[in-house]
Amino acid sequence: MSSQITIALSKGRILKDTLPLLKAAGIELAEDPGQSRKLIIPTTHPDVNLLIVRASDVPTYVEYGAADIGVAGKDVLLEHGSTELYEPLDLNIARCKLMTAGKVGVPEPEGRIRVATKFVNLARQYYASIGRQADIIKLYGSMELAPLVGLADIIIDVVDTGNTLRANGLEPRDLIRTISSRLVVNKASMKVKHDAVSQLIDQMSRAVQETC
Amino acid sequence: MSSQITIALSKGRILKDTLPLLKAAGIELAEDPGQSRKLIIPTTHPDVNLLIVRASDVPTYVEYGAADIGVAGKDVLLEHGSTELYEPLDLNIARCKLMTAGKVGVPEPEGRIRVATKFVNLARQYYASIGRQADIIKLYGSMELAPLVGLADIIIDVVDTGNTLRANGLEPRDLIRTISSRLVVNKASMKVKHDAVSQLIDQMSRAVQETC
Ligand SMILES: O=P(O)(O)OC[C@H]1O[C@H](OP(=O)(O)OP(=O)(O)O)[C@H](O)[C@@H]1O
Ligand SMILES: O=P(O)(O)OC[C@H]1O[C@H](OP(=O)(O)OP(=O)(O)O)[C@H](O)[C@@H]1O
Repeated sequence: MSSQITIALSKGRILKDTLPLLKAAGIELAEDPGQSRKLIIPTTHPDVNLLIVRASDVPTYVEYGAADIGVAGKDVLLEHGSTELYEPLDLNIARCKLMTAGKVGVPEPEGRIRVATKFVNLARQYYASIGRQADIIKLYGSMELAPLVGLADIIIDVVDTGNTLRANGLEPRDLIRTISSRLVVNKASMKVKHDAVSQLIDQMSRAVQETC
Repeated sequence: MSSQITIALSKGRILKDTLPLLKAAGIELAEDPGQSRKLIIPTTHPDVNLLIVRASDVPTYVEYGAADIGVAGKDVLLEHGSTELYEPLDLNIARCKLMTAGKVGVPEPEGRIRVATKFVNLARQYYASIGRQADIIKLYGSMELAPLVGLADIIIDVVDTGNTLRANGLEPRDLIRTISSRLVVNKASMKVKHDAVSQLIDQMSRAVQETC
């Protein structure tokens, strides 16, 4: 590698599960992002920096070239909806399910349904695909509250262990799709920094295969 | 009060500064929301519950009637842009400034400007009002990172002490407007629960005047 490479990802599960894959590509963090409030994290590789951004912001940083590479959930990528990103690699990490959920034992209404979610584009596509009339209510967080206080009949959210739903008296209903995190690459970086980027993709790809 | 009243607000400064005003209206929290992960918090008043939601979600909960009353920053209310909410009272709390900011010593470009913000509607209105061409980039968090990595020339964010800007080598530029938190009320609740709601507004209003 000789080009400067910037990688955008979010704190939490994606960061934790991406670190071993980066390590297989010879990249380790020079600082613990858990301990610091810094958003630009140097690595042991002199040409590689990490940016710590909100999960929903990863596609934006990569699309505009502020990061060459990003790691983002398929949920976030589909909701963002850009055709301007290469998506060369399923990292097979941060696996979960995008599902509908409602109050335990409470049947869904017959007519129009009220659905609260941060995935408004995905929600619209889903209800259009099953031919169901739905009012979609955009929320930014804590979707699980919405059915408890009558804001919505149903939420659409990602489900992993199901603990968040259970703790709120909610039950999973329909599986919309399975989710995992993907490597995304800026189109210009793919050309201008071709050697560095494809080497990184190859090394991470091999690490993914070894973990499976 | 005899109607059930639900009040939506966000954790952090708004919650902290709203508590004394609620206390003046005879409402105290029965649990510490800082300690618990609960999103529905009972109060010492049997008819009043608090909902802890994201700041950006407060107008949505009140608009749809899942909360009768909410406390939200004027920045959030203007960005949300609903005409479906009564806004009877400026609580004069969580005061800050909505500003543009850029890298210290770096002049703004002559032509089109790239602006990153979570307040995309406010940003569009602002640049239209000053007749400046701007590409607005929606971010969900950590706006201060955008100019540092070349995502944007300028950010629009709320500024209080200025510490966040300073820590990132940014400087405040133009004041777009001063911000404070407002009481907002659902239109139907204003009618159906008129006595309880107007009593609460009166008591909080008196507490606001006494603090000034
Ligand atoms: O089925 P579970 O194992 O309980 O996981 C589901 C939770 O995980 C997601 O939130 P996340 O922790 O990613 O953070 P967020 O709330 O900021 O989206 C999601 O929104 C649920 O809250
Ligand atoms: O001028 P200062 O005193 O540094 O305050 C400004 C900070 O406060 C706001 O964030 P807030 O803490 O409200 O949370 P947020 O980042 O979730 O918006 C804002 O986005 C800045 O980050």
